[in-house]
Amino acid sequence: MTEIRIAAIQTHPEFGQVESNVDTALAAVPPECDLAVLPELFNTGYQFINRAEAGELAEDPADGFTARRLRVFAADCAVHLVAGIAERDGDRIFNSALLVRPDGSWEIYRKIHLFWDEKIIFDPGDLGFPVFPACGTTVGLMICFDWIFPEAMRTLTLRGAHIVCHPANLLLPYCYDAMITRCLENRIYAVTANRIGSEHRTETALTFNGLSQIVSPLGERLAAVDDQACGVIEAVVDPGATRQDLTPRNNLQSDRRPEFYDL
Amino acid sequence: MTEIRIAAIQTHPEFGQVESNVDTALAAVPPECDLAVLPELFNTGYQFINRAEAGELAEDPADGFTARRLRVFAADCAVHLVAGIAERDGDRIFNSALLVRPDGSWEIYRKIHLFWDEKIIFDPGDLGFPVFPACGTTVGLMICFDWIFPEAMRTLTLRGAHIVCHPANLLLPYCYDAMITRCLENRIYAVTANRIGSEHRTETALTFNGLSQIVSPLGERLAAVDDQACGVIEAVVDPGATRQDLTPRNNLQSDRRPEFYDL
Repeated sequence: MTEIRIAAIQTHPEFGQVESNVDTALAAVPPECDLAVLPELFNTGYQFINRAEAGELAEDPADGFTARRLRVFAADCAVHLVAGIAERDGDRIFNSALLVRPDGSWEIYRKIHLFWDEKIIFDPGDLGFPVFPACGTTVGLMICFDWIFPEAMRTLTLRGAHIVCHPANLLLPYCYDAMITRCLENRIYAVTANRIGSEHRTETALTFNGLSQIVSPLGERLAAVDDQACGVIEAVVDPGATRQDLTPRNNLQSDRRPEFYDL
Repeated sequence: MTEIRIAAIQTHPEFGQVESNVDTALAAVPPECDLAVLPELFNTGYQFINRAEAGELAEDPADGFTARRLRVFAADCAVHLVAGIAERDGDRIFNSALLVRPDGSWEIYRKIHLFWDEKIIFDPGDLGFPVFPACGTTVGLMICFDWIFPEAMRTLTLRGAHIVCHPANLLLPYCYDAMITRCLENRIYAVTANRIGSEHRTETALTFNGLSQIVSPLGERLAAVDDQACGVIEAVVDPGATRQDLTPRNNLQSDRRPEFYDL
């Protein structure tokens, strides 16, 4: 497999300003990158006051404004994009991540583990943890709070992912270090694209903690954002460098003993 | 549930000096503690040159020297002990951990995930990940390299463990931080008792990295050894403080969606 140039875009969306949020985020995608990951709900902002408001801003991924813009950009710039959006499917609303390819094809992941008030805004994801071909390799998608359940990234790994794209709107402080463990235990790459800024549209003020990062199968931070600013991080990754032996007698995939694991 | 005073004993065993290794380790157990965790293979040392040597030093946990000493000490001091030993069962040899209660009863865990040359020395554990009543709560046992497989501590958590006792002879640098993630994702306590020192009995020199620690269900280091020295760390833990909600709408046990997880 060939090397892939990956970028994570750390943004500061303004709630409800979909068009400018999309413009700003796409303007930050580096010209030479193969795969760019944008934050969770990068187009709408995070703190919906209720389900009805989320429904108004949610889009059909087949022909919604954001999805169309992503497809045009992906084609024009020959880049794969992963981005979090509010997805409408009939009466249902999901916190989803879109994967858009330069050829116009796309895939969707619907967040399985909803965080806090997301449970009253969104429907829980119903499509499991699929993996998708992209950039000559296999990628998996998970969103924000999915990180705390080791089964999420493990399932993506077992299904063949070499790179996990992880749009996020992180509020808790733990994920930054935990992703080191996630990459070590699975021996694959992860790209966390987080947002910054605060929202205070309900009684609860939320501050998002930035700290986007790209982590290697050895648990090394290949690139990370140091501070609370918008920015782009990039790393060149080699999907062939995943799932390698940890010692001459240990491979973390073949060493698993699922007959002794509970689900 | 009542609070439990836990100790982890960081030792420097001399290879093959079983009697003095046991004496030294037990002498370090604090007088008032309820549960003391000793390192992996604390009585024999780690680097067996071959399976035959391990067989000579392995013991029957029912009536071997070390097991009898542990039972006498546990009864005399009214303490629960967890300690790693080489276990002989007929022709088989396991890298095991004993749990010994003050009443003389005992339990055993046989290491499921063997590291590097352990695979030519020991048989792989065949008893899964049982949990045991101890100190008025439920404890689980895992050994050293088991940490890198999230399924180990997850299985113990699903089976009811509030405290995971983790004897170790750690060589890789990753476990110290990874145990923060393990405790956060499971919302239970973990006690890692590691050893220090070096062994160079084969062509490979091994240096063990100390860093024993007791970590809370919030991922806090309640106690940790700072340096490469023998020592004891202690913490008072509350099994009733495990498995608590992470947010008003999130509990990591009930939020799991195993229908979407692969094993």
